[in-house]
Amino acid sequence: MGIRERLLSIQSHVVFGYVGGRAAVFPLECLGYDVDVVNTVNYSNHAGYGNVGGTKTSAKELENIFKILEENELLAPTRLLTGYIPDAESLSAVNRIVQKLKEERPGLIYLLDPVMGDAGKLYVAADVVPVYKQMLPLATIIAPNWYEVELLTDTPMTDMPSLQKALLILHKKYQVPNVVISSIPLKPWLLAGLPSSISPPNDVDDHEDRADWLFCLSSSIVTISGDATPSHTHINGSKSIGCPSIVHAARVPLIPGYFSGVGDLFSAFLLSHFQPTVPIPLNSTSAVQTPQPPSEPTHVQTPFSYAASLALTKTHAILSKTHEYSLSLPEEERLPSDDELDIKNPMRKVRRMRGRELALIQNQDIIRGVGLSTANTRWMGKWESFWEN
Amino acid sequence: MGIRERLLSIQSHVVFGYVGGRAAVFPLECLGYDVDVVNTVNYSNHAGYGNVGGTKTSAKELENIFKILEENELLAPTRLLTGYIPDAESLSAVNRIVQKLKEERPGLIYLLDPVMGDAGKLYVAADVVPVYKQMLPLATIIAPNWYEVELLTDTPMTDMPSLQKALLILHKKYQVPNVVISSIPLKPWLLAGLPSSISPPNDVDDHEDRADWLFCLSSSIVTISGDATPSHTHINGSKSIGCPSIVHAARVPLIPGYFSGVGDLFSAFLLSHFQPTVPIPLNSTSAVQTPQPPSEPTHVQTPFSYAASLALTKTHAILSKTHEYSLSLPEEERLPSDDELDIKNPMRKVRRMRGRELALIQNQDIIRGVGLSTANTRWMGKWESFWEN
Repeated sequence: MGIRERLLSIQSHVVFGYVGGRAAVFPLECLGYDVDVVNTVNYSNHAGYGNVGGTKTSAKELENIFKILEENELLAPTRLLTGYIPDAESLSAVNRIVQKLKEERPGLIYLLDPVMGDAGKLYVAADVVPVYKQMLPLATIIAPNWYEVELLTDTPMTDMPSLQKALLILHKKYQVPNVVISSIPLKPWLLAGLPSSISPPNDVDDHEDRADWLFCLSSSIVTISGDATPSHTHINGSKSIGCPSIVHAARVPLIPGYFSGVGDLFSAFLLSHFQPTVPIPLNSTSAVQTPQPPSEPTHVQTPFSYAASLALTKTHAILSKTHEYSLSLPEEERLPSDDELDIKNPMRKVRRMRGRELALIQNQDIIRGVGLSTANTRWMGKWESFWEN
Repeated sequence: MGIRERLLSIQSHVVFGYVGGRAAVFPLECLGYDVDVVNTVNYSNHAGYGNVGGTKTSAKELENIFKILEENELLAPTRLLTGYIPDAESLSAVNRIVQKLKEERPGLIYLLDPVMGDAGKLYVAADVVPVYKQMLPLATIIAPNWYEVELLTDTPMTDMPSLQKALLILHKKYQVPNVVISSIPLKPWLLAGLPSSISPPNDVDDHEDRADWLFCLSSSIVTISGDATPSHTHINGSKSIGCPSIVHAARVPLIPGYFSGVGDLFSAFLLSHFQPTVPIPLNSTSAVQTPQPPSEPTHVQTPFSYAASLALTKTHAILSKTHEYSLSLPEEERLPSDDELDIKNPMRKVRRMRGRELALIQNQDIIRGVGLSTANTRWMGKWESFWEN
C-alpha cells in the first residue's frame, strides 16, 4: 500500500445507513484511497424512509469549504467523484470547482454520477438537469441510470436506434469517453438485440424468466496510443474500428425488492478499479485481488469494461448478502411494498427500509476482493455488433 | 462477521485529513461495527491548520436529527462514542439524547471523550466543562487527556496524592467505572512512583532519556461477578481487594512532532476492543487478531486494560508509520514548528500539518491486527502498589 491516491468525494451524508457518501467512502478507503469527503447534505437517513431530518449544505457553505481547502493547498485530488447534490445552486458551486480542478490537472479522473431520479421520477430540483448537461464534458466516466440518460439526452430509449442515438449524444455532443448504465430492466427489444455470445453468468438457470434479469451496459471511446498501452491492442485489432465506441454488456439476476445506495456503491467500485493507463489486470493501489479476464474474444476488456466487471461483481455480491440478511429478519421487519398499507402505517415502510440497508460492514471481504477469481467474476461481454444493429 | 453491533458516533467531520469522526469511523468500520455518524461540525480541515472553513451543526439541527432517527426507530446503538462538540448548547443536546439512550438501554457501552483542550489550552467554549461534569455518570469509559482530567476534577496533578485524588473523584464522585489517560509526559514524580515491574516495551534502548517516553494509565473499577466472568478471577485474588480501582500503566516511546487525531483514533480502538462480558482474549465482532496476554502477574489484564493495551499498540504503530511517511516528504513540507516563522508564512505550518495527517488508509492492516501477537503487543502492566503510594 505504498501509493497514495487522493480522491475527492462530493455527495450526501446520512447518519444511519448506506447511501451516497456512506455507501461509497468506506469501500474507497478499503481499496486504498485517501478520500476527502464533502457532504452535500447532512440527513438522518435516506429519503426512502419517508421521514427525514437534517439540512442541506448551502452553495455558500460549499464554496467556503472549497475556498479554504484551496488556500490550504488541500485540493489536489487525482480522482473525483460527484453524486447526489440536491439543488441547482449547490450543483453550480460544484461545477465551478470541478471546472477549476480539471483546468489545473487535466489528468484528473472524474466520475460524474448525475443523481437526478429513477423510474420516471425526479428526486432533485428540475433545474439541475441543464447544469449536469454543462458538466458532462468534464467527466471521464458517467454512471447515469436509464431515466437519467433519457433526461440528459432528451431521448426516450424505446428501441436499438434510440439507445444508439442516446449514447452518440453522450459520446459526441457531450464528449464523455466512458458511459455505464447499470440496473437496466431487460426489455424484449434489448434482449433481442443482444448477441448470444454475451453469455449469462455461470449460475444461470435456463428456466428463469427474462424479467428476472437486470442488464448492465458500458460504452467506451478508446484512444489507441500504441505499444505503451498493451491492454488496448486487442481492441485495435477488432471489428470495432470505425465504430464510435466499444460496447460491453452483462446480465445479472434481479434481486427482488428495492435497495438504496446500490448505484453509489457501484460508482465507488467503478472509479476504484478504473486504471486507464495500466495493463489489465491492474496494478491496483490496494491489496485487492484483480483477476485476469478469460482469453475468449467476447471477454476482451477495455480498462473501462474491466472496471465495470469488477464493480458489477462486487455490487451484486454485496446486494445478494444484503438480501439474504433481510430475509432472516422477523416478518414484521420485511413486509413487502404496499402503498396503501404503507400510508396507513409508515413504520411498515421504515422497518422494510432498515432491513435493506446495504450490508457493507459485514461483507468487507467482498469489497477487498477476497476470493475473487477469473472464474467467479461477472465479466462484461463485448457486444461486437452493437453499432451494426 | 455474523454479529451486527451498532455504534453511534457523535463528533467532528473534516473534509480533509483524519481527526474526530474521520479518524474514528473507518477503524470502527474495519473492526466490524455498523457506525451511525452524527457530525457536530462540518469543517474543511482541523483547526491546527490555522485556516478553517465550514460550519458547526447547531443544537437545533442535532435535536432534529436525533428526533427523526428516534421516530424512525433508528436510534438503537449498543455502543456510543462522543468526541468533539464545540459548544455548551450542542453538548447539552447530546447530553439529553445520551440520558435518554442510557435510560432505555442500561447495557449501552458509552465512551465519553471530553474533548476540551490540551496542554493548558481550551479549544472549546469554557461553558462545556460543567456539562461534561453532568455527563460523566453516564459514561462507561472516559478518555480525557491530562489537562482534561484536571479540568473535570478541579485538581492540578502535581504528585502521586493529587493523581490519586483526581482518579478517586472520577470513580467515586462521578461514578465512572473506567478511566484512561494516554500521552502523559513522563514527569519525574510519576517515573519515581512507577514500580520496576512495569517494564518498558521490548524495543527499549536503555540509554534513552526519560523525556523520550509517554505514559498511559488506566484505572478500572471491576465488579467481581463470580464464575461467569473468568477473566476477572485473577483480579479477585490480587492485592487490590479493598483498593478503589485496578490501575495499569505502560510507557511508549515519544514520537517527535505534534500529530492531530491521535486521541480520537485511540478512543475508537479502546471502544472497539472493550468486551466487558467476554473472557480475554475477546471473541471480537470482527476478524481482528486478539492476542492472549502473557501469564506473568504484572500482565494480568482487566477487560479494560486489555482493550487499552490493544489501543495503545495499534495507535502507536500507526503513529510510527505516519512519522516515517512525514520524514520522507520534501524538506519544505516538514519544516519544524517555529511560532515566529509560522506567523510570517502560514503555509509553512499548513504543509507540516498536511504531512502529519494520520496514515490510516495505508496502514489498515494494523487496524485489523494483521501480524499482532502476544509478543508484539504493548501490554499495560498492572501497577499493584498504586493506591499504597
